[in-house]
Amino acid sequence: MGRKYVLGLDFGTESARALLVAVDNGEEVSTAVEPYPDGVIDVELPGSGRKLEPDWALQNPRDYLSVLEKIIPRVLAASGVSGDDVIGIGSDFTSCTMLPIDKNGTPLCMKPEFADNPHAWVKLWKHHAAQPEADLINEMARKRREPWLSRYGGKISSEWFFPKALQILKEAPEVYAVADRLIEGGDWIVLQLCGVEKRNACAAGYKAIWDERYPSPAYFRALDRRFENVVSEKLRDDIYPAGVKAGGLLPEIAAKVGLRPGTAVAVGGVDAHVAVPAATVTGAGKMVMIMGTSVCHMVCGKEKKPIKGICGVVKEGILPGYYGFEAGQTAVGDIFAWFVEHCVPPYVVEKAAAQGKDVHAYLSQEAAKLRVGESGVLALDWWNGNRSVLVDADLTGLLVGMTLTTTPAEMYRAILESTAFGTYKIIKTFDQGGIAITKLYACGGLPAKNPLLMQIFADVTNREIFVSASDQTVALGSAMWGAVAAGEAAGGYKNITAAAQHMARLKEQSFKPDRANHRMYEKLFAEYERLHDLFGRGKDRLMKNLKAIKLSVRGMGA
Amino acid sequence: MGRKYVLGLDFGTESARALLVAVDNGEEVSTAVEPYPDGVIDVELPGSGRKLEPDWALQNPRDYLSVLEKIIPRVLAASGVSGDDVIGIGSDFTSCTMLPIDKNGTPLCMKPEFADNPHAWVKLWKHHAAQPEADLINEMARKRREPWLSRYGGKISSEWFFPKALQILKEAPEVYAVADRLIEGGDWIVLQLCGVEKRNACAAGYKAIWDERYPSPAYFRALDRRFENVVSEKLRDDIYPAGVKAGGLLPEIAAKVGLRPGTAVAVGGVDAHVAVPAATVTGAGKMVMIMGTSVCHMVCGKEKKPIKGICGVVKEGILPGYYGFEAGQTAVGDIFAWFVEHCVPPYVVEKAAAQGKDVHAYLSQEAAKLRVGESGVLALDWWNGNRSVLVDADLTGLLVGMTLTTTPAEMYRAILESTAFGTYKIIKTFDQGGIAITKLYACGGLPAKNPLLMQIFADVTNREIFVSASDQTVALGSAMWGAVAAGEAAGGYKNITAAAQHMARLKEQSFKPDRANHRMYEKLFAEYERLHDLFGRGKDRLMKNLKAIKLSVRGMGA
Repeated sequence: MGRKYVLGLDFGTESARALLVAVDNGEEVSTAVEPYPDGVIDVELPGSGRKLEPDWALQNPRDYLSVLEKIIPRVLAASGVSGDDVIGIGSDFTSCTMLPIDKNGTPLCMKPEFADNPHAWVKLWKHHAAQPEADLINEMARKRREPWLSRYGGKISSEWFFPKALQILKEAPEVYAVADRLIEGGDWIVLQLCGVEKRNACAAGYKAIWDERYPSPAYFRALDRRFENVVSEKLRDDIYPAGVKAGGLLPEIAAKVGLRPGTAVAVGGVDAHVAVPAATVTGAGKMVMIMGTSVCHMVCGKEKKPIKGICGVVKEGILPGYYGFEAGQTAVGDIFAWFVEHCVPPYVVEKAAAQGKDVHAYLSQEAAKLRVGESGVLALDWWNGNRSVLVDADLTGLLVGMTLTTTPAEMYRAILESTAFGTYKIIKTFDQGGIAITKLYACGGLPAKNPLLMQIFADVTNREIFVSASDQTVALGSAMWGAVAAGEAAGGYKNITAAAQHMARLKEQSFKPDRANHRMYEKLFAEYERLHDLFGRGKDRLMKNLKAIKLSVRGMGA
Repeated sequence: MGRKYVLGLDFGTESARALLVAVDNGEEVSTAVEPYPDGVIDVELPGSGRKLEPDWALQNPRDYLSVLEKIIPRVLAASGVSGDDVIGIGSDFTSCTMLPIDKNGTPLCMKPEFADNPHAWVKLWKHHAAQPEADLINEMARKRREPWLSRYGGKISSEWFFPKALQILKEAPEVYAVADRLIEGGDWIVLQLCGVEKRNACAAGYKAIWDERYPSPAYFRALDRRFENVVSEKLRDDIYPAGVKAGGLLPEIAAKVGLRPGTAVAVGGVDAHVAVPAATVTGAGKMVMIMGTSVCHMVCGKEKKPIKGICGVVKEGILPGYYGFEAGQTAVGDIFAWFVEHCVPPYVVEKAAAQGKDVHAYLSQEAAKLRVGESGVLALDWWNGNRSVLVDADLTGLLVGMTLTTTPAEMYRAILESTAFGTYKIIKTFDQGGIAITKLYACGGLPAKNPLLMQIFADVTNREIFVSASDQTVALGSAMWGAVAAGEAAGGYKNITAAAQHMARLKEQSFKPDRANHRMYEKLFAEYERLHDLFGRGKDRLMKNLKAIKLSVRGMGA
């Protein structure tokens, strides 16, 4: 038996990626990326040209298939590996990205009679037009004291499943009526691959209020009489954890892409969550941070503990046999990018260019020369609100301590530090909730891009940070789940722990906390934490008041 | 009798200016400016090359005279006016700028035996090396509950007279011993012009703890045994208000500069304070704001009222017959300049250049398009601490309300607004202290440079702001005091009210408050004021703690 391979398929916002990985040692043999032809549809519908309202964001489900048919053959060709040696396929998808389908699984937007109805298309995760529905869902849940509300920090996002489903019902009852099911994109792609619908626990749990069961028909009825039986009529309530085999690859797809019919297809996953084992983490008490424009924090635990301000707790939502906890910071790399775009003066940009560095690298170099605390500048990292542990989108950024000699590097460093303080607050909240976190694991784009940031995270949290060796942790994670779905007999693995032992790797160099820096950071964090509670927990309504004034003015002038 | 003229001499930090003004209507006939050859001496002493320690800032008194001998002939030549038609000379000086002199008025640094002793030179206002002496002065005043301490907001600055005098005594007792007198530069220049020493109430009152008398010998003895009789031994306690004639111009000077011997020379003044009548204000309840890098607020009142956080109350310190109140903001234009230098990105600089505007003008134009409150951004204007009404140098700047879509123009506007809120807080403090301020008068560089700022000041304070018509209000004010010193009989004026009626003018266009904007600003000011009290009055020690951390780190690393 020759070397065996698995395929990780990562369906992102703009493109999809295929990663071919050797099962024996996790070698990333080849990769292929292809953008979706229609990309993010937020201006007008393809074909009909029908204009979309603001806050809409759709996708074309044809794109997922057409891209798949390109990247799989390409990744095979680039590697020289025969499709016969690929034993499993795992996939992840953005979420909640959902669509209405007919009995056969065909998206309604592919039917001529619905092609010009925006509600028949895929609603992408960042479709924000279901805010009125989200407001109703939250209001009714509060009114009825629904027990699940607190698990999501007291607020369901407009990005999630039921606001989107309810929007379809309210604005396009004809689409809702005709739809046989409403389904996550990640579950739909698995259905396309193997003809079997096995919905994944991760998307259901984190985005569709599923906690071994969905909310009750009585609750849904309270939202809208016609919505009472949304679960039994439009969803499925058999839900599967990661690593379960959904089915075998359909012959017609296998022929198109050059794989064996019957190749094991794993149930789907959500992008951030599948990365956990790819960062070598397959047990409790270790936090995986997916660090990019925002940061997702994933922790597994043996017990279900309610932790205030953690966005979601889902049974087997991350790893089988564990409760998966998810926390997050809404903006991290995004704040650094904002600062570099809007707040960095020409003299800094010129110095960076003269040294052949990009502005982030130059500012990091200058910021690294500063000792902890010497700038006197402190920030609250709330430029895009606060997800964990305050769950409050109305909070805003704050910078304090500036003098007439304050430099851009000092402000940049204060902003980096504030994001580390945000993560430290999350870790402390887990600790207080009874989940001790001893080690941190990082993946995503930031660790390689900004080593100073990583050192600051280590120093602030006083914890060693290990970094995933893979640049494509998400796709690698999907591939690993594919190896588990394939099973030991087929040359895969019996479980994710075994898969991770062989396939996942960390970089040799970790970031170790500096004790002296940590002691000084404890002093700064005491200031951060007091400000955090002052403005974040309602003792002072400054940010709320500014927001209310802003909205009243914008409303007035519209 | 032909047209008569007066001369205003304005001794600034880097240069001196002469302004020739027609007495009848205040026409500014000509002006001449000349930098001091040795400028600000902060590296090494001229001649000996002796190095200075950090925080030192000296001047060469020869420069005051050599510059005088250039600018007076030049201003006469440029105007075509005969020196015989100049009836009076007024002058103002930076303060506290002080020097040791001998019995004849000769600065000790001009004597060969002291030329290489830095303490024999002029200590410029921004000489900050007397901080230990200022600390001692404050500590002892608190310990002894000196009644005058509260008049200066509880703190004497290291820039003021007695810290500098005490530094001479402690570090150069030989200079102190030999010095016949210690004198303000502004009084020394008057002594040079007319051979008469008449010290001015403005500098004595605002910078030398003079309140119809100096602190007691017992207090000075408590500072240092040798300092007990500093007043009787080294100062004079006959003090004169503005507009008093000190004497007639000495023949030898008159000959050198082309003026008549005996021309009336007014007692000196301090730069900001002499500007008040030049902004047409000669009575109570009107606030004059000298707006530049910082803002000075001058108000006159009939009664002496203790107003908490106002930097000084001096009998006849601004106008004869009135108590002069001085308040201030340590940084205003300085913050805008900091922002433009360190926080404005290339794309803004490029757009400004493309429109042929400087960055301030471009940002103001963009900021003017924003409605009050719509950015959601708020600032505390404490980049250089807070003089009034908190008297606290350890306070620092704050910006809050930023999101990922916040623009440089929004932050710039928030900073402009914060300085207006700072002035509004001062006005309200005067109000609460029983001094109602109905109208505002502005002079200095900012009003012409930044009309948006002025409109914001009007809208925030809900008060009309009149702007002095002169670009050289300080020098014009000095000239007006010269006209009063000359007196009616000589073709001048009997008092400053008469002088102002004829010689001072306002621009036609004032800034009128917009009611709707003011209503919205009241909401924002409520937020500013709560933050102001929270961080400024000790309820939350954030800024103090950050400063303490900063100092501890810098101390550690030194």
